[in-house]
Amino acid sequence: MDFLEEPFPDVATYEDFHTIDWLREKSRDTDRHRKITSKSKESIWDLTKSLLDAWSGWVVMLLIGLLSGTLAGVIDLAVDWMTDLKEGVCLSAFWYSHEQCCWTSNETTFDDRDKCPQWQKWAELMTGHSEGAGAYVLNYLLYVLWALSFSFLAVSLVRVFAPYACGSGIPEIKTILSGFIIRGYLGKWTLLIKTVTLVLAVSSGLSLGKEGPLVHVACCCGNLFCSLFSKYSKNEGKRREVLSAAAAAGVLFSLEEVSYYFPLKTLWRSFFAALVAAFTLRSINPFGNSRLVLFYVEYHTPWYMAELVPFILLGVFGGLWGTLFIRANIAWCRRRKTTQLGKYPVLEVIAVTAITAVLAYPNPYTRRSTSELISELFNDCGALESSQLCDYINNPNMSRPVDDIPDRPAGPGVYNALWQLVLALVFKIVITIFTFGMKIPSGLFIPSMAVGAIAGRIVGIAVEQMAYHHHDWIIFKNWCRPGADCVTPGLYAMVGAAACLGGVTRMTVSLVVIMFELTGGLEYIVPLMAAAVTSKWVADAFGKEGIYESHIQLNGYPYLDVRDEFTHRTLAADVMRPRRNDPPLAVLTQDATTVEDVEMLIKDTDYNGFPVVVSRDSERLIGFVQRRDLTLAIKNARQKQDGVVSSSVVYFTEDVPQLPASTPQPLKLRRILNLSPFTVTDHTPMETVVDIFRKLGLRQCLVTRSGRLLGIITKKDVLRHMAQMMNQDPESIMFN
Amino acid sequence: MDFLEEPFPDVATYEDFHTIDWLREKSRDTDRHRKITSKSKESIWDLTKSLLDAWSGWVVMLLIGLLSGTLAGVIDLAVDWMTDLKEGVCLSAFWYSHEQCCWTSNETTFDDRDKCPQWQKWAELMTGHSEGAGAYVLNYLLYVLWALSFSFLAVSLVRVFAPYACGSGIPEIKTILSGFIIRGYLGKWTLLIKTVTLVLAVSSGLSLGKEGPLVHVACCCGNLFCSLFSKYSKNEGKRREVLSAAAAAGVLFSLEEVSYYFPLKTLWRSFFAALVAAFTLRSINPFGNSRLVLFYVEYHTPWYMAELVPFILLGVFGGLWGTLFIRANIAWCRRRKTTQLGKYPVLEVIAVTAITAVLAYPNPYTRRSTSELISELFNDCGALESSQLCDYINNPNMSRPVDDIPDRPAGPGVYNALWQLVLALVFKIVITIFTFGMKIPSGLFIPSMAVGAIAGRIVGIAVEQMAYHHHDWIIFKNWCRPGADCVTPGLYAMVGAAACLGGVTRMTVSLVVIMFELTGGLEYIVPLMAAAVTSKWVADAFGKEGIYESHIQLNGYPYLDVRDEFTHRTLAADVMRPRRNDPPLAVLTQDATTVEDVEMLIKDTDYNGFPVVVSRDSERLIGFVQRRDLTLAIKNARQKQDGVVSSSVVYFTEDVPQLPASTPQPLKLRRILNLSPFTVTDHTPMETVVDIFRKLGLRQCLVTRSGRLLGIITKKDVLRHMAQMMNQDPESIMFN
Repeated sequence: MDFLEEPFPDVATYEDFHTIDWLREKSRDTDRHRKITSKSKESIWDLTKSLLDAWSGWVVMLLIGLLSGTLAGVIDLAVDWMTDLKEGVCLSAFWYSHEQCCWTSNETTFDDRDKCPQWQKWAELMTGHSEGAGAYVLNYLLYVLWALSFSFLAVSLVRVFAPYACGSGIPEIKTILSGFIIRGYLGKWTLLIKTVTLVLAVSSGLSLGKEGPLVHVACCCGNLFCSLFSKYSKNEGKRREVLSAAAAAGVLFSLEEVSYYFPLKTLWRSFFAALVAAFTLRSINPFGNSRLVLFYVEYHTPWYMAELVPFILLGVFGGLWGTLFIRANIAWCRRRKTTQLGKYPVLEVIAVTAITAVLAYPNPYTRRSTSELISELFNDCGALESSQLCDYINNPNMSRPVDDIPDRPAGPGVYNALWQLVLALVFKIVITIFTFGMKIPSGLFIPSMAVGAIAGRIVGIAVEQMAYHHHDWIIFKNWCRPGADCVTPGLYAMVGAAACLGGVTRMTVSLVVIMFELTGGLEYIVPLMAAAVTSKWVADAFGKEGIYESHIQLNGYPYLDVRDEFTHRTLAADVMRPRRNDPPLAVLTQDATTVEDVEMLIKDTDYNGFPVVVSRDSERLIGFVQRRDLTLAIKNARQKQDGVVSSSVVYFTEDVPQLPASTPQPLKLRRILNLSPFTVTDHTPMETVVDIFRKLGLRQCLVTRSGRLLGIITKKDVLRHMAQMMNQDPESIMFN
Repeated sequence: MDFLEEPFPDVATYEDFHTIDWLREKSRDTDRHRKITSKSKESIWDLTKSLLDAWSGWVVMLLIGLLSGTLAGVIDLAVDWMTDLKEGVCLSAFWYSHEQCCWTSNETTFDDRDKCPQWQKWAELMTGHSEGAGAYVLNYLLYVLWALSFSFLAVSLVRVFAPYACGSGIPEIKTILSGFIIRGYLGKWTLLIKTVTLVLAVSSGLSLGKEGPLVHVACCCGNLFCSLFSKYSKNEGKRREVLSAAAAAGVLFSLEEVSYYFPLKTLWRSFFAALVAAFTLRSINPFGNSRLVLFYVEYHTPWYMAELVPFILLGVFGGLWGTLFIRANIAWCRRRKTTQLGKYPVLEVIAVTAITAVLAYPNPYTRRSTSELISELFNDCGALESSQLCDYINNPNMSRPVDDIPDRPAGPGVYNALWQLVLALVFKIVITIFTFGMKIPSGLFIPSMAVGAIAGRIVGIAVEQMAYHHHDWIIFKNWCRPGADCVTPGLYAMVGAAACLGGVTRMTVSLVVIMFELTGGLEYIVPLMAAAVTSKWVADAFGKEGIYESHIQLNGYPYLDVRDEFTHRTLAADVMRPRRNDPPLAVLTQDATTVEDVEMLIKDTDYNGFPVVVSRDSERLIGFVQRRDLTLAIKNARQKQDGVVSSSVVYFTEDVPQLPASTPQPLKLRRILNLSPFTVTDHTPMETVVDIFRKLGLRQCLVTRSGRLLGIITKKDVLRHMAQMMNQDPESIMFN
């Protein structure tokens, strides 16, 4: 009886905080697929099963699209309502947000959409007075209190139920997609708590967005539905295909930002999931206008060549902001990690919320939700716009203004707004640095875009006024005649937002695609691209890493970035273990090791696997055996197989020689031997080795010279070596 | 004197129709980069050179963007003019196209933009009569004659000056990007002739587009500018980076469709080149309206859930059309290759042009240029539209119609147009199959889109009329009340175009991005995605390959598709050479082969390289030497190195033993030995081997068992094996 013909029950799984072996997962899936295909000819039932198996990928995507679209819609609605709850309540139905409340009211005129009797601020509701210093202070106080209670609830829920729900989740997801195991990071609890606390955190008015956490939520959905199909739940490689696609759904930036090992089939899958999610979101319709874009803009004038100069300046600003933000945020997070500060996460969140709320309330541009702010900044000043930003002095000779409004001088409202915007800019820049990385769900997109949009709008108004007052200057002469509408400050805001987002995340083409998605402005591809390219150049000059990569490094995740270029002249021999003065490599021989030896080796070392050679003398490599498989096999054999004792010889060869009756029963372990371990020669340049690890997703690689086994290189060794070459602390790579 | 310290002058180059070794090219570039970096500290001049080197990629991209943008603009203008030349001429300036002619005319009213006295048809110009059967026949005749002379000129130019200028070029570019050498394919002559003949071919009215050839033109520009920088001209790997980016510029579909080995840096580059090209094109402004999109559409109504049914049906149609087109076109091309037909390319082009022109002229929808046709089909019927397709019966009670026109019953013009569209559809479907693959530049995008747009518009009008006449049916009841504008036939045309394009090319996400690029319609992502996904499913059910892959296979190019999944259970041992009964592998030993032996080996075999082993006995592999390097080294040594004779021993070892004075001078060749050849064990599953070849871009891989060299697998072996496993003729893989 050769019990080894039976597969082990849980050989497939990896331990927590370990790296998976892509090649192995892939070949396991191919085996499974082959088995199903060959079996499918046997009966109708097996054929059905094989069809189900083939379609399960699409089914999973459908489910992910449905669930994540629903969650996104619910989050949007809840955030709207809770954000408004900080200021007041709807008397006709308390579950209405301010806009919904006044929308359903008949007493609203078109000019004053925001004011209706049904919507009452807290002071008005409690004291009956809506004006005066007392009412203001009361509203102020309640605003801060609501904010504090939201954020306290958020941080407590995260602390108690799901510590993994904090942050944006993107650094971890990038690492997981690259083949790392973090148990529970994409679990049901994380999904639930992240959804709830995301609503709380965004509503509390902290300077954070929900786009990054939504990617995490989508991935959690993906993981949840993976467990329904053994095809995905039992294969970490296949599971990651689903997760990549899930991450891409909704936010189409997976291709570049989140993905690592991304077969083309997955692109189709995510495309499909995005379709379903968009569809679901459309049915829920949170923006109330049947449009899928978040900030829909329509500008009436084209842009001019000369405007590229301010656009490029905005790009430079974006790059500088990106650098400043990444450096400051990483420094602060490192401080949090290493000092006493990290021990009081709840207190920290409370303090930052209090500061944010107290400082934000007096300034109308920071009091409202950040997405509303961005929306207003992006908007062109139409004829009906009543906001302060559009307080221009109209030409009295002009008839009722239509769409094409010429440039006008700014009124006092605009100058007032400019001051408030400058204050808001400084406030946002500072507070975002301290907010990102706290123990609550927090995204970066919206705050980064806000910083850029504010700066862009300021620049836009400045250029507009300059063009109006000095239209005889040479630079304006050609394109800005008096009475023409030549500068669109809203476009500047959009360009600034793209530049800042690019500076922080270093996303490239996808960034512009996202800007399209968010705004629907396809005409302005050149300004957006110019600003994004400049921003990337400037930021790259100060450091190659985006915010997500920096956080990955800070946390010491074993992530091999596809963008890092390794150009040092080291060889595999310089990186492999054992080093010169180390003890020799722990190897097994194919027919001369006893069970006891193997058990000793397992006990004495903590390697994940051992190479198997023909003999210690010849050092010819024949295969590689996983520690986990070895342990299980010996344990099983000792329990179930008669005659296997400590002095039994372990055979990795195909045939076991006839042994005299006196010797103990041999243990045949060829089945668990990987006969195709990956090898390189000791002369292989490390850049090639890095490439191989990256592209093939290896866990380890053996080093040989003229057919003799010399040593081993693991992913951790590669990462350590890369850190060393970049003058970083190699010990910062923590996991296996 | 060890002359081998000097690098050989042209070791780097490959022979025509050979495959490059990506790893080798990459490590050569790293060496070059290291040399420049270390030298840059020596003097200011070297520093400048190193900076220039670092920026040369961007400079090349700038130049590519400028040139390809200019060429695209010039081609557009020339095609406009020459297409109109077939019908008539502008009296005020013969170099004006019809539109430009009437645009500059003052006598044009807005309603009749197409009619102005300056523009005269040929019959009017020659006989003075613009009406009547005689004038019609004369115009018809001249139309056919112009078309024939254009296409004759095109095919002759291609035949005489640049045979590589024919076709769309995309299959060849995909193969080149994957690492294949086709000399002259991207040369200056090809660039020039392709540009000129593209204009002629499109103007002749044949059923072909210019998008595919434009990618080829952009790649030629890339190759042209590569030769300015030794960084790119001397490294085939780096050159392909530039070419990938160039292919992406303008048409952003490189990422998926054209690219193979696409480092992320390249994305940025192509982004930049696309920016410059867009910018240049904007300056030339061929569409006369400062918009970058080709068919700008604006619809006034959203789409409804129930409309997904016809959209999905259009997707099915697209998939069926794709399958039909690919099968029929490949069958016809194979016939051309294998029968007498292929010997008369000029005659073939003349015949197809004659048939096309004769059949196209009577039908107004096929007479005009295909892009104009698509543009009209995409357009919504506004109030001012005068075309036949918009001949609806207006409600007499209605005041002057504004933007939101309710659904109306179709007038006789619409029914007339429907018949003509059905005829045009059949005509386009048949003629495109015979046109694509002739010896003139020809793209597929526009004809495919035209087929889809015609089908879509027909379906759209049908649904619209059904909704108008039967708005009490359950399916229409919910969303189409009488007097509402609920169906937009133009949207159906757009969806149909996307579906057909997807069915033929099997492009995925990029397809939808292209549709955005071409039309600017961001609101309709869900209909487009639904149709594209359906079309892909349907087409994939009949065969996995798109038109470009099919042509690659037809031509036997060694292209390893990233999308093919290899799931057979073969091992490296089954694929490697030598096979069981073959003579043993041709190897060199490290210290026991004479110069004569090596020369004999080179003469007797045609392998591209030879493994070097310690001894024939132990078969321990130490490296791999390229045939070309070996030939050159021996030739050089025989000429320049004293004492190297036929009986000299070739040493690949590090140290050469002290030899007695009587023996001839040894030849040391370690420098040309690749010490890190890629190896796999004989037990490695072929799916892993395919993966390695694909991801690392290998040219060959050695097979070992327990450190002993067993055999070799080349890219050609892999491709042959894959063809065999898919029941195709393995001998169809022709090149190395």
